[in-house]
Order: sequence, then structure tokens, then C-alpha cells
Amino acid sequence: MSKPVDSAVSAVRTYIDRHRDAFLADLGDWLRIPSVSAQPEHAGDVRRSADWLAAALKDTGFPAVEVWETPGAPAVFAHWPSDDPRAPTVLVYGHHDVQPADRADGWATDPFEPVFQDGRLYARGAADDKGQVFFHTLGVRAHLAATGRTAPAVHLKLLVEGEEESGSPHFRALVEERAERLAADAVIVSDTGMWAADTPTVCTGMRGLADCEIELFGPDQDIHSGSFGGAVPNPATEAARLVAALHDEHARVTVPGFYDGIVELTDRERRLFAELPFDEERWLRTAKSHATLGEAGHTTLERLWARPTAEVNGIGGGYQGPGGKTIIPARAMLKLSFRLVAGQDPDRVEDAVRAWVAATLPAGIRHEIVFGAATRPCLTPLDHPALRSVVRAMGLAFEREIRYTREGGSGPAADLQDVLGAPVLFLGISIPSDGWHAPDEKVELDLLFKGVETAAHLWGDLAENWRDAR
Amino acid sequence: MSKPVDSAVSAVRTYIDRHRDAFLADLGDWLRIPSVSAQPEHAGDVRRSADWLAAALKDTGFPAVEVWETPGAPAVFAHWPSDDPRAPTVLVYGHHDVQPADRADGWATDPFEPVFQDGRLYARGAADDKGQVFFHTLGVRAHLAATGRTAPAVHLKLLVEGEEESGSPHFRALVEERAERLAADAVIVSDTGMWAADTPTVCTGMRGLADCEIELFGPDQDIHSGSFGGAVPNPATEAARLVAALHDEHARVTVPGFYDGIVELTDRERRLFAELPFDEERWLRTAKSHATLGEAGHTTLERLWARPTAEVNGIGGGYQGPGGKTIIPARAMLKLSFRLVAGQDPDRVEDAVRAWVAATLPAGIRHEIVFGAATRPCLTPLDHPALRSVVRAMGLAFEREIRYTREGGSGPAADLQDVLGAPVLFLGISIPSDGWHAPDEKVELDLLFKGVETAAHLWGDLAENWRDAR
Repeated sequence: MSKPVDSAVSAVRTYIDRHRDAFLADLGDWLRIPSVSAQPEHAGDVRRSADWLAAALKDTGFPAVEVWETPGAPAVFAHWPSDDPRAPTVLVYGHHDVQPADRADGWATDPFEPVFQDGRLYARGAADDKGQVFFHTLGVRAHLAATGRTAPAVHLKLLVEGEEESGSPHFRALVEERAERLAADAVIVSDTGMWAADTPTVCTGMRGLADCEIELFGPDQDIHSGSFGGAVPNPATEAARLVAALHDEHARVTVPGFYDGIVELTDRERRLFAELPFDEERWLRTAKSHATLGEAGHTTLERLWARPTAEVNGIGGGYQGPGGKTIIPARAMLKLSFRLVAGQDPDRVEDAVRAWVAATLPAGIRHEIVFGAATRPCLTPLDHPALRSVVRAMGLAFEREIRYTREGGSGPAADLQDVLGAPVLFLGISIPSDGWHAPDEKVELDLLFKGVETAAHLWGDLAENWRDAR
Repeated sequence: MSKPVDSAVSAVRTYIDRHRDAFLADLGDWLRIPSVSAQPEHAGDVRRSADWLAAALKDTGFPAVEVWETPGAPAVFAHWPSDDPRAPTVLVYGHHDVQPADRADGWATDPFEPVFQDGRLYARGAADDKGQVFFHTLGVRAHLAATGRTAPAVHLKLLVEGEEESGSPHFRALVEERAERLAADAVIVSDTGMWAADTPTVCTGMRGLADCEIELFGPDQDIHSGSFGGAVPNPATEAARLVAALHDEHARVTVPGFYDGIVELTDRERRLFAELPFDEERWLRTAKSHATLGEAGHTTLERLWARPTAEVNGIGGGYQGPGGKTIIPARAMLKLSFRLVAGQDPDRVEDAVRAWVAATLPAGIRHEIVFGAATRPCLTPLDHPALRSVVRAMGLAFEREIRYTREGGSGPAADLQDVLGAPVLFLGISIPSDGWHAPDEKVELDLLFKGVETAAHLWGDLAENWRDAR
């Protein structure tokens, strides 16, 4: 680097401090748009969100900004070429859609009316993922201001999709179709988190996801549980039995073939996990849960990061109102999701689940099963030079040792890896208590600005060390 | 009897034919009142229903008609003393409240706008139980007209409660409190059905009912199934496991103590059941179901009439909307009901279920369990003289052999038996396809008028034979 580290750090911080308020005001505007991709009635909001981001990226200085249509929700692409033609190309990935959120789910305030309180910003999408996409805008400006550049040290591309919370059904096709425009030497995914505010970490892998909805049909209509009970199959009972049969007594998934081909943890990885300052009581508080429960023979971190799961996201059937209704319901439904780890193929998992469901249900219960678009698992090589750049940039921002984690959640990063042939790195500043997919989602403001700082330092380091590495 | 049978039959029929249209118009008015006792917003309608019935019973000629308040919905009591002071006293039991019904559940027409079509009357409550209560009004008038009496041959009492579809929570207390007014030599329950339109039967017993709602609490709020999945208990999964654990592989209920003390079927009863013209394919069509499934070692009729059950009436938890939501839900709920047979005590069953649920759920899942008011099972002695009167009166109306069944459903008849010390007899004309608790509930008009005829013949036969029997 041309300047000493201390001076670069303080130049970045000075710039960020000066633009802090305007940055937060802009982010607040974006968070007000309820871009819930899973709910058709919000399709217009998802589009507004894309347009809003495109305008913001133009304001940031990206010379090329485009809204890319898909058969579903639009994505936003931006490109800011380096003034050094030999510089590496980096593609930043994030998403502008958000999870469903309803005040009645337990939010203290309106999920789409941002609230700044006690150093936090509360809103649906504050951490997942609008906040983490948006820190790149101030990050690249701080990079330019602190280095005196007029263009970034890397060819910087952004791809911000609008269907991540719906399983990215059109993402792979979009990436395949636009592979030339998206071509990159590395992908930076900003849609993950860190261990804790005082233990900054870099993520090295994400679980994949396959999910399905199963409808079970019993009697052609609700029937009287006195007149018919005890003599015909009940679809609510059978839905429950299916769920109960999903795991054995060791909490291993029983679907035949489910574990085929999975990459088991190495001793080094288990040691890295075990070295993290994991406090189960504290973790349970973050999980808002009251006990651990999971696959035998694995620690909680291994269960979360490196073991596949089968989870019930929703179950329903029969009478839901007050009081009782003595019926055998006509139908029941299950929403199941399966987290996948490296080595598992979503298509094979889907086939295995379909075969298992068909073989498990009794006569008299018809079923329909619909899978969403799957997300592949991915893993970053621990020794990749670009990963070292991320660790150094984070080190400057956080002034602490950066450690290694994985992410239990899922993102379409693996599609970028597959199609673009580029390694995937993760840069995220969210922490487990941020409440992703839950009421009262928030982001810690000081971490959000550490993210800005990291982005501001990363492009120069990557440009310098990438050249060395090649 | 003072007149030959043929002449009595034709006198009754002539009277009924003359009053048929007015009777149906009045019943239609009553069915328009949505007296759904399980839904608090219909409390006013249940009251209107009681007032409507009280007025109708006064019009019928009952000298004493009273609306009896309870802590819940009101009941209606009516008394028409015989002109023979030595006549036996008969208490007719029914209910004026109905099951919830919503057009969206699959009704072809508004459930509270009666439709006459193809010899049927479609409406919620047409068969369960307004139609079967109401046939007694025309029945007693026809009895008087055909016999030239000015008062019934028996001291006739009616008790029509307003909370049967909510498990009759205040019925037993009401009966205990008013036991002197209700005192009777026999109870006639008109809230059951027959085998088929062409196989008239008299019911000799009903199953009891215990029901509960179980809420399961896992995380304090919905949490991300990627960040936390595989490592903490999921209340939807645990609700499902509870349901799955309710039965063993022989479809026997596993709750310890559940079967304690039950009265097993005698060989004669099994033979009576086996002699009925049971056609499984046809029964499945009536049940709108596509297979039989039940306790090993028992026929379908035995499972329905003489074996206890554990049934899921409702299950819910997690995301219910369109698309997916990758959460571990904060809570889940189960609505379970248990049909009970003679010898089972609802209080002991409740204790057994509570203990089993507490012992079955894992650490980290808190639960709350609320039982509704239970209904006891009951059985009528096959050789009771009053039962023979019912069989003879039905024989005059139906002109066929009357056979014996039981009823899988439940009613508070056993409370009347317990408190009043009177045998309970069943007089019902509904058939299995009438759709109790289901969409498109209906009553067959010709059977409804056979009910009127039976009631018209019953009081004279009872008065005559009761005297002989005493």
C-alpha cells in the first residue's frame, strides 16, 4: 500500500463519519419499501425496491447501473470499472427482497418503519440483507476518498437479486444468461453474519436449502369425529406421523439416501469450531430457545454449520378457531425445509424425499408435493489468497483477530461459483441476535459501519495481493 | 290401544300431511339463526335461538315454557303434564346450538339459509339437532289429534340445551340444580341417527368425549431455520411427534391407563353389529373417505361404536401463507379429542393424557393443556321396556323391522342418566350421509316426518306399557 495503515484507517473513518447521517437516512428510505418476495401482493414493492437501489447506485457513482428483469422479481446490476485495466474483477452479491413481516407476529414497532434506538436500526431487512448491501455504497466512496482514486482499485460489480427470500427461483438462469457481464475473479457475498460483536469472523461456507410443501388429502370434506373417528385415516394425524418419522432416535434424518456423499468435517475444521468462544447458555438466549436438541455425535456448532437438517416451517390442518370442533379434517399441510451441506445434491435430495413420502403415507391419504427452487451448499477454500484479503480488511476495521466460521443459512452463492467459476468469499457484519426472519430484526450501527470500513479497505488489498497471487 | 293400529297410523299421517308446510316453514326460520355456541361472536344468536324455540313450544301448546340461564348459553325447558296423573314422565333431550359453519369450508349454499331440494332440507343444524328437536312439536300435536286427547298420554318434558356443540360445559350443573323440575321416568334423546333410510334402527349407546387443546412453546419468537435449525427443539415437530406417539402400530392408543376399566363387547353385541347390512365401499362413500384404518382386531362398526379413539381435530404452527418461510416457529397447537366408551371415566382419561404429554415432550418445549368439559359414555339396557316402546313406535312409522345400533358420537345423555336416575333411550332419524359437523348438512324430509310419526305414536305406547312394566 502506498500510505501507512494508520493513515488509511483514519482517512476512511473521517470520510465515513462525515457521511454517516445521510447514509442512514437513505438506508431508512429503502427499508420502508416492503419488498417481500414471497407474497404476490408485494410484487410492486419488490420492483420499487429495485428501482430505488438502482438510483442509489447511480448516485454513488457507478457508471453503469441496470435493472435486470427475470420471470419473477427484478435484480439490480451495477459496474464500476477500475482505472487499471489489469485489476481483478470482483462481483459483490446481495439481495433486496426481504422475509414476510407482520406487526402481529410480535414486532414492537411497524417492521417497515425503521426505528433508530440504542445504537441499533430496527426494520425488516436491516440486517438481511439491505443493510449489508448498502454498506458497499459508502464503502466504495470511502475507498476512493481515502486513496484519492477516481475509480476503484478493482473492477467492481454488484448483483443484488430480488428473490433470495423465495429461494432464488430464477437466479441461476439469470446468472447463466448474463454470465459474460457477471464474469469475475472472485465473488464477495454480503449476506452472512459474524460470530459476535466482539469476535469478528469470516464465514467460509453456507448450507444449501431444499424446501417443499406437502398437502395431504383424507376425506373429501371435514367429517364428524364421533360418527367416523377411529375407523378412517386422518390427514392431520398422517401429516404429524410423517414429521415424526423424519428423524430417528439419534435425530438423524431417516429419508433413505439423504446423507449420501456429504463432505464430513476434517479434524482441523472441528478444532477451529471448537476453539470459538461458544457459550451454550448465551447462544440459547440468542436463539430465544430453552434447550439444545440435534444430531447425536455432533456439537451444536457442527449441527448448525456442517450437518444437514430436516425442519418443519409450518404445519396446519383442521379447525384453528376458538373452542373445539369435533371433526376429522379433509386436509392437512406441511412446509418442510432441508438444509444441505457440501456434497449433497438438491435434486437427489428432492427425489429421495418424494420417494420417502410416497412410501410412508397409508392407503386413503392422497398427497401432493411441490418443491421450491433449491439452493446449493458451498464452501470456500481456507487457503485462498482473496480470503486473506478479506481477513486483513476486516482486521483494519475491527482491530481484532479475525476467526473462521460457517453459516447455517443458505444463499445462491454456489450458483455464482458454479457458473462463473470464481471462488466465493463472505463479508458480513450481522450477528446472531439480529433476528433474521424473526420479529424485531435489527442491525447494530457500529457493526454496520465496520462493514463500510472493511469494504473501503478490501478493494485495494485485493488488487495488490491478487496480482501477487496470480 | 283404544283404536286399531291402522286407524291410528292413518290418523297421525293425515294430521301431519295437513301441517307439513307450516312445520317446514317454521323449522326454516329457526335454522336461519346461526346459533354457533363455540364462537363467542354468535352468543347473541344462541340466545335468539333459545327465545325462538320457547315461543314455538308455547305455540305448540306446552303450558309451561321457560328459558333457563346458565353461565354460558341458555337452555329451553317445556312441560306439558298428562291429564292422567299416574302417567309416566318422559324427558326429551336435544340441543338448539349448532357446529361452526362457513361457506368457505365447502358449502354449496349459505349454511344459514335453508334450501329445500330433492326431498332434502340443507342447512347447518338441519339434522344436528334442530330438525330432530323440532319433530317433537308436530309429533305431540299429531298424538293429540289422532287420539282425541287434550293433553299427552305421558307427562311430557323437553330440555333443549344451547352448548352441546361446545361440550355442554354447564349442562351437568344445570341438570343437578334443576333435578326436581327435570325428574323423569325415562329420558328420550333425539340427537342421534339411524343405520340407513331403508334400515331403521334404534341406538342403544353413545360414546363419551374428552377434548383438549395443547399449546407448545419453543423459541420465544420465530427464529431462522438456517441460523438455528438442527440444534434446538421445534414446537411444530414436537406437536407432530406427540400425535404420532398417540397410537402404536396396532392403532391402539398408547396413553398409559387409557383403556383401564372399559366394558368390552359381548358376543351378542358383536353378533348384532355383524348382522347389520354393512357395505364397506358404501360406508366409505358416506364417510367421504378412501380407506378404513383403525384398531387391530376390531371391525369398522366395533371401532366406531364400541372402541375409544384419539383423534386430531386441528393442528397448527409456523408459516401458513403462500410460498415458504424458513423459520423454526415459536409455537404450535393441537386440538385433540378422545371418544370414550362405557367404563371409561373422563376425569381419569384427562389425568392420563396430562401425565403422558408432560412425560413425552422434550426439554426446551413448554406446554399448556386445557380440557373442555367432558361428556360421559352411556349404554341403554337392551331389554328395557321403554326401549321396546320406542321400537314399536318406530315400527308403526317405518313399517319395517327396527334393528339395533350404537352411536359413535357423544351427547350429555349420560349426565341425565346419572343425575335423574332414569334410563336413557335414543330416538333419532338422521342418517350417516346427513353431514353432521360438515359442509352441506341436510336432513331427509321423509325421514324427518317418520320422526314426527314415531313421536306421535310413542307417548301412548309408553304410557300403556310403562304401567304394565311397573
